[in-house]
Amino acid sequence: MRCSTISAAAERIRFILGEEDDAPPPPQLFTELDELQAVDGQEMEWKETARWIKFEEKVEKGGERWSKPHVATLSLHSLFELKTCIEKGTILLDLEASTLPQLFELITDSQIEIGQLKPELKDQVMYTLLRKHRHQTKKSNLRSLADIGKTVSSASRLFSNQDQNGSPATAHRNLTSNSLNDFSDQPDRDQLKNKLMKKLPRDAEASNVLVGGVDFLDTPFVAFVRLQQAAMLGGLTEVPVPTRFLFVLLGPKSKAKSYHEIGRAIATLMSDEVFHDIAYKAKDRQDLLAGIEEFLDEVIVLPPGEWDPDIRIEPPKSLPSSDKRYSGGDGPQMNGDTPGHDGGQGGGGGHGHVGEELMNTGKFCGGLILDIKRKLPFFASDFYDAIHIQSLSAILFIYLGTVTNAITFGGLLGDATENMQGVLESFLGTALTGAIFCLLGGQPLTILSSTGPVLVFERLLFNFSKDHDFDYLEFRLWIGLWSAFFCLVLVATDASSLVKYFTRFTEEGFSSLISFIFIYDAFKKMLKLAHYNPINADYDPNYVTMYDCRCMPPPDDGTLISTVLTSVNTTWASLDKKQCVMYGGELIGPACGFVPDVTLMSFILFLGTYTCSMSLKKFKFSRFFPTTVRKLISDFAIILTIVIFCGVDAFVGVDTPKLIVPTEFKPTSPNRGWFVPPFGGNPWWVYLAAALPALLVTILVFMDQQITAVIVNRKEHKLKKGAGYHLDLFWVAILLIVCSFMCLPWYVAATVISIAHIDSLKMETECSAPGEQPKFLGVREQRVTGVFVFVLTGLSVFMAPILKFIPMPVLYGVFLYMGVASLNGVQFLDRLQLLLMPAKHQPDLIYLRHVPQRRIHLFTFIQALCLALLWVLKSTVAAIIFPVMILALVAVRKAMDYIFSQQDLGYLDDVIPEKDKKKKEDEKRKKKQKKGSIDSEIDFVSHFEALLKADQSA
Amino acid sequence: MRCSTISAAAERIRFILGEEDDAPPPPQLFTELDELQAVDGQEMEWKETARWIKFEEKVEKGGERWSKPHVATLSLHSLFELKTCIEKGTILLDLEASTLPQLFELITDSQIEIGQLKPELKDQVMYTLLRKHRHQTKKSNLRSLADIGKTVSSASRLFSNQDQNGSPATAHRNLTSNSLNDFSDQPDRDQLKNKLMKKLPRDAEASNVLVGGVDFLDTPFVAFVRLQQAAMLGGLTEVPVPTRFLFVLLGPKSKAKSYHEIGRAIATLMSDEVFHDIAYKAKDRQDLLAGIEEFLDEVIVLPPGEWDPDIRIEPPKSLPSSDKRYSGGDGPQMNGDTPGHDGGQGGGGGHGHVGEELMNTGKFCGGLILDIKRKLPFFASDFYDAIHIQSLSAILFIYLGTVTNAITFGGLLGDATENMQGVLESFLGTALTGAIFCLLGGQPLTILSSTGPVLVFERLLFNFSKDHDFDYLEFRLWIGLWSAFFCLVLVATDASSLVKYFTRFTEEGFSSLISFIFIYDAFKKMLKLAHYNPINADYDPNYVTMYDCRCMPPPDDGTLISTVLTSVNTTWASLDKKQCVMYGGELIGPACGFVPDVTLMSFILFLGTYTCSMSLKKFKFSRFFPTTVRKLISDFAIILTIVIFCGVDAFVGVDTPKLIVPTEFKPTSPNRGWFVPPFGGNPWWVYLAAALPALLVTILVFMDQQITAVIVNRKEHKLKKGAGYHLDLFWVAILLIVCSFMCLPWYVAATVISIAHIDSLKMETECSAPGEQPKFLGVREQRVTGVFVFVLTGLSVFMAPILKFIPMPVLYGVFLYMGVASLNGVQFLDRLQLLLMPAKHQPDLIYLRHVPQRRIHLFTFIQALCLALLWVLKSTVAAIIFPVMILALVAVRKAMDYIFSQQDLGYLDDVIPEKDKKKKEDEKRKKKQKKGSIDSEIDFVSHFEALLKADQSA
Repeated sequence: MRCSTISAAAERIRFILGEEDDAPPPPQLFTELDELQAVDGQEMEWKETARWIKFEEKVEKGGERWSKPHVATLSLHSLFELKTCIEKGTILLDLEASTLPQLFELITDSQIEIGQLKPELKDQVMYTLLRKHRHQTKKSNLRSLADIGKTVSSASRLFSNQDQNGSPATAHRNLTSNSLNDFSDQPDRDQLKNKLMKKLPRDAEASNVLVGGVDFLDTPFVAFVRLQQAAMLGGLTEVPVPTRFLFVLLGPKSKAKSYHEIGRAIATLMSDEVFHDIAYKAKDRQDLLAGIEEFLDEVIVLPPGEWDPDIRIEPPKSLPSSDKRYSGGDGPQMNGDTPGHDGGQGGGGGHGHVGEELMNTGKFCGGLILDIKRKLPFFASDFYDAIHIQSLSAILFIYLGTVTNAITFGGLLGDATENMQGVLESFLGTALTGAIFCLLGGQPLTILSSTGPVLVFERLLFNFSKDHDFDYLEFRLWIGLWSAFFCLVLVATDASSLVKYFTRFTEEGFSSLISFIFIYDAFKKMLKLAHYNPINADYDPNYVTMYDCRCMPPPDDGTLISTVLTSVNTTWASLDKKQCVMYGGELIGPACGFVPDVTLMSFILFLGTYTCSMSLKKFKFSRFFPTTVRKLISDFAIILTIVIFCGVDAFVGVDTPKLIVPTEFKPTSPNRGWFVPPFGGNPWWVYLAAALPALLVTILVFMDQQITAVIVNRKEHKLKKGAGYHLDLFWVAILLIVCSFMCLPWYVAATVISIAHIDSLKMETECSAPGEQPKFLGVREQRVTGVFVFVLTGLSVFMAPILKFIPMPVLYGVFLYMGVASLNGVQFLDRLQLLLMPAKHQPDLIYLRHVPQRRIHLFTFIQALCLALLWVLKSTVAAIIFPVMILALVAVRKAMDYIFSQQDLGYLDDVIPEKDKKKKEDEKRKKKQKKGSIDSEIDFVSHFEALLKADQSA
Repeated sequence: MRCSTISAAAERIRFILGEEDDAPPPPQLFTELDELQAVDGQEMEWKETARWIKFEEKVEKGGERWSKPHVATLSLHSLFELKTCIEKGTILLDLEASTLPQLFELITDSQIEIGQLKPELKDQVMYTLLRKHRHQTKKSNLRSLADIGKTVSSASRLFSNQDQNGSPATAHRNLTSNSLNDFSDQPDRDQLKNKLMKKLPRDAEASNVLVGGVDFLDTPFVAFVRLQQAAMLGGLTEVPVPTRFLFVLLGPKSKAKSYHEIGRAIATLMSDEVFHDIAYKAKDRQDLLAGIEEFLDEVIVLPPGEWDPDIRIEPPKSLPSSDKRYSGGDGPQMNGDTPGHDGGQGGGGGHGHVGEELMNTGKFCGGLILDIKRKLPFFASDFYDAIHIQSLSAILFIYLGTVTNAITFGGLLGDATENMQGVLESFLGTALTGAIFCLLGGQPLTILSSTGPVLVFERLLFNFSKDHDFDYLEFRLWIGLWSAFFCLVLVATDASSLVKYFTRFTEEGFSSLISFIFIYDAFKKMLKLAHYNPINADYDPNYVTMYDCRCMPPPDDGTLISTVLTSVNTTWASLDKKQCVMYGGELIGPACGFVPDVTLMSFILFLGTYTCSMSLKKFKFSRFFPTTVRKLISDFAIILTIVIFCGVDAFVGVDTPKLIVPTEFKPTSPNRGWFVPPFGGNPWWVYLAAALPALLVTILVFMDQQITAVIVNRKEHKLKKGAGYHLDLFWVAILLIVCSFMCLPWYVAATVISIAHIDSLKMETECSAPGEQPKFLGVREQRVTGVFVFVLTGLSVFMAPILKFIPMPVLYGVFLYMGVASLNGVQFLDRLQLLLMPAKHQPDLIYLRHVPQRRIHLFTFIQALCLALLWVLKSTVAAIIFPVMILALVAVRKAMDYIFSQQDLGYLDDVIPEKDKKKKEDEKRKKKQKKGSIDSEIDFVSHFEALLKADQSA
């Protein structure tokens, strides 16, 4: 018979809540449960025992602290008792009262009127209700001692009164006036100091639940009150917010325990999103009862044998939205359900979400003009939106990242190009291009940087030039000019609209490959270092007397030089290694081929840097120190690590290879100037032939820039000012020209650091209830942080005297870290790991729920095969066409449409991350369920009710 | 009105279940939910969609796999619908049927009889019920292809039949006979191969839930059947267990969704411990309904707004016991409750659990005699109880641990005593004493080993002897003899009963201190090593030509030796370092003071060993590889690490200091034999004076031995053969004498390795339901593993040629690991960490719920102060009285009774670990609640019912 009331309740609720859809939502509620407790077994007072904003926090009596926020688990029993309370108790809606005594007076009078309370008990009830309220707040020991003193004296006063008068009824008058002082409408000091206020919005209101057992009542005294105007009822509430709701339950002392549970039940209901709305809008008792019915209907039931109620359930990461409820569905969806065919076309990668930014206009420069039109109105706000303390921390964090990057890539570029492009060029180029791009680019959140693929290309180019005796600088200039030209052609033809074909498959394949190259390069560099500084494995300290390396005159024709040496008053033996080699001497001795300590120290620095930066980065998730400190340490992990290991290096003092930085502001290599003359170095046909490698650079730049841009502009970042793919590419092309003329490194969008930039600028709801995950609002989109970062980077050139203390192995360690860190969260890697996991240990990933494991493994295998092929390609002479092959990934992905069903691909190849996926699925499922109407249920029940009459056997 | 039925239901259940308490418990149930689904949209078949043993496992339709076991979350709605089903449907208890068609015939007939099913629909119902059952089992692709072929052919046959006859009613006869082949009572191949059988006990029975929507029914067809005899109903169930229960729900297709939920509800009920018993013992429909009522009453309710039902709740670590239920309590206890004063005297450390082993008999050797009497009856079983494969793995694991220990301590002892006791002595002593102790001792699970405090004492003793020119060996022998004598006195006087005063405070203080000494020593050793092999920080590879070290003749009076050298045809320059020093030459040159690479390589090995062993040990908790592989890697972590880093050392080839092991079976030092003569070395008064240090050794041995024994004999290990504190100490004393005479190290119980021994012998329930934590049954108490371990250790002396490849830094790394690992799970360390954690990030520890944080910090502070004092003491000349001071910890603990309340101490200073604590608290709470009777609730409700009549306003 309960069932038949459900649809009526749902109907009523839809009516109650649907009424004024344009009215402002009711304010947030703070709910406090106060229970009547004896102090020192004598005087009673109201003691706060739990509180709710969204989740329950309980007072740990022994621990004198708040528990962690947790999901309030109730018993069905208490909910039914609560229902009875609302059915039978006094319900006073929109009561006009502004003080607590007045309020209680109205309640008791109403109870007496309907005969639920004997008039002679009124005084005692009033006395009890007006007892002092004690909240769980932090106090110094001194303060609480003072409190105890106060309580004792008032208790003794009470007793003297009682002794004189014989009954507490007369005594209460003295005390109510005393209590009244506590119930002033000015918030007291404790209330104002309460830190919880930060978690509450300004317009929050309170609902107070008072439950307790008393001696003098034989029957329960229940009232639910909603005030016409929320009123500040003095010390009633822990926080200084006005009270709107009041639930009172007094009854015989023997059942105090069950009152506690009923109190928790009503408090949980008040903190429920739907019932909260109903409570504000209810017109009568029936509305409230319908609210309870709806709550009961949506409730999630755990079987008693499968869960220990003592385990506090931590708030979940994702909360269900209340929109799903009272939509006339058929009860909540339990986790075991839906064997149906949902999921279907479950997304289909990035294509589904292509906005107007990526449409092909078909006009000359159409996309570029649209981009400018789209971004121009925001240009002013791009500056004033930055005014927030968060911007400062973002600037600092990204500056450190950019500088680290500039140092690392500068060092590696210098290495790859024999210092034609070194650290100083790297700094200058980063500062110049970055600042211009952030000031004028289409997506100022993107950070430009040297990237792995460009580095690979530079290395290949330099070696090619050297092998074929080309003038490297000039050759590079022409390649740059051609590439810029090609890029501008791509801009003019709206080619950026092609990025919609970059799915997760391509994106992840590309970024995984770059990460692998990072990791591989770091180790290769270390092995090379070890090769240059060989360890003598046969060294025996005992034979130190025979362990040396002497400079000997060359066996033949050394006389001339010997004469020279004699003339400058030197002997062969006194020459150092370089001199000896210079003069053609021979180094003879067991010590000659070896360099002690350097290799081992380098490995210590390398592995130490990696381990240390990894653990500092993870420090954010430890339990130690306040959140801000942890976040700070985590944000500064890399720079901290670099400082630490520079310190270790300096402490040990071994002569490890250091970063070579120029001490003056001039090109790192003495063989070049700041401007590369475009003609004269190479034969004329090279100028034209440069177009061929330029094609490769163009593809590389386009891929690198646009894949990152797609990632930055992802829908889940909730960007409001729109993207500017064409404008981005336009500026990249212009900067390519500038950098080529100055022989600075080429810059494109750097994935890892751009994402870090966005992460550091994320905005979240500020006052979230304890236990609730803050909601993500969007990103602080502006140009100021970027520009500042690069201006600071430019000024860092003057840091050169400091930078030369940084050992190369430390930078290689940072490199290794960057490679490994950027593999984090890449679905491809997750799937690779699945290969090693037995099915039952695999995490509960959404695609594992919907795609058979063998299909997942096949997908992973194809992806791995592609990467392996690319890797092999990279290592052979064909390396120069590497960028073209990355484009081939798109083709492979397209071909996979024939192997996999669209459903499987929807789950596996999707730019939408895990969590959004689950939400989407929900929505889809919900839509389906709306079809299954409630009518059918009524059928089911009514059929049985019809049978009931005929049925005699049961 | 629901409430009033509760007590009736509880009453009835107590009656149903209480009837035959001595009867064997009903068998475990396997519950399977099959749903009617269309294959290719045409033929219907029963598809398994979920299964239960304890937790729900769902078929992931898309993923074609079983989900992880999870807590089945239900909707209240489906439970109420189920109740209606049981109220109205056909209930057939103790039905006699052995085949499925027979069974269904009986059900349909019964339904027709009571008028719930129209007779003309019988054939269609029968046809539907007898459709084929398809289970979710692993199949190769080939097999499933074959299946598809079969289905297609049978489907086409069906169609030809239908076409001929026009109605499916006649068609079904052909098909039932066809289906009957599938329902043979022989389990088929798929069933027998099912791995799930391992999780089920032999006598398990099945309950099958069949739900589905069909076209031809307008009203639901519901039946709940319990068979008289469980029968194997062919392919009905996934696993070959006989079916006992059958729940059938057929109804109009439009409500298939809600049938799924009802099916899940009954399946969850069948897997509930209490309802399961009721289902077996129910006499009529009312009993079943009472069962559902009881279930509803105990259910845990999660508010809909605080939990997303899509999140699958993982099975909890600890399950509530069903004893707590139907005990007439007032509903389940929710996590927010009990503001009451429970906890009280929450334990009080180990004292509470002192058994008869620790009673003071007051007689001479009374305790020892009792110990022997207690252990003797088990002596035979101590051998045959070992026959299990687990013993083998325990032997291997503990052997590796013991050998590592013997090597490490041997090396350190050799170092501390200038090889008077070295690795060989360590092996011999370990093997001898360990084997004897495990064979004859009181607690054969205890593993003897050299321990930290003994090592500290040996070091002090050796230095003292050297400083005062005592004969070390003889002095040590007399100390040993005196100590053994004192120990025997302690045995005779039942002094071991004093260990009941060792609380957690003392235990943890002692073990933390030892761990700290381990860690400190490991680093000290490494620094010493670095000191012996200094690095030249100023080395510049360029000046290698001037970097040497030459042996020069001594400036004065070198002529004689020079002559000698000349006579053997050598020059000063050709001497190696040792010779040069021997002949009095001078080493001159910048290279002389330095040793390249060794220090750095040592640090790499040291830190590498530590990191590697730590991560391998943690590998058990990773998701990769099957559980057995992970456990193996984790168990062998240390030995694997040692092998890996010996390999690294050999690969690099740097001459790091290696473990010095004798190649022959003779004492490590050439200055001693296997027997120490008791007289002659020292003046006579030294024999008597040795009694003084012997007193210290006695305290040390007693403390070390008995604290470990207390830990080994802890109640939570569920040892059944009793402890033998006096017998243990007796054998330790005897072995002390033997070892002193042979100058082998002294051995006492080693905490860390004894606990590892116990852990490796833990017995757990073998067939636990998926998702359920296996239950701990006890420890395989026997003497065989211990004896074997030590015999193997003895044989390892012949491993000396292999052992000499182990570099010392690797062993120091192992030492560091042991120190850090033994700090794991020490509450003192947890509390130290709390000091650095903000309150809201602290874990939900039981003592944090009950003791104010400042009291916890005070307790931690006192403990830390004690340890700091002990540490300082250890570092000064007073170090020799160190063991006495450990005893002082007991006194400090006693004094703390005056500072802390007994309740606080009960939570903070307790040998019972966290989880047991929580359980105990539950029990206590439960006992209290029994007092709050159900009567009062009836009052509460009936009062309202009385009011109901008077109440007109609602």
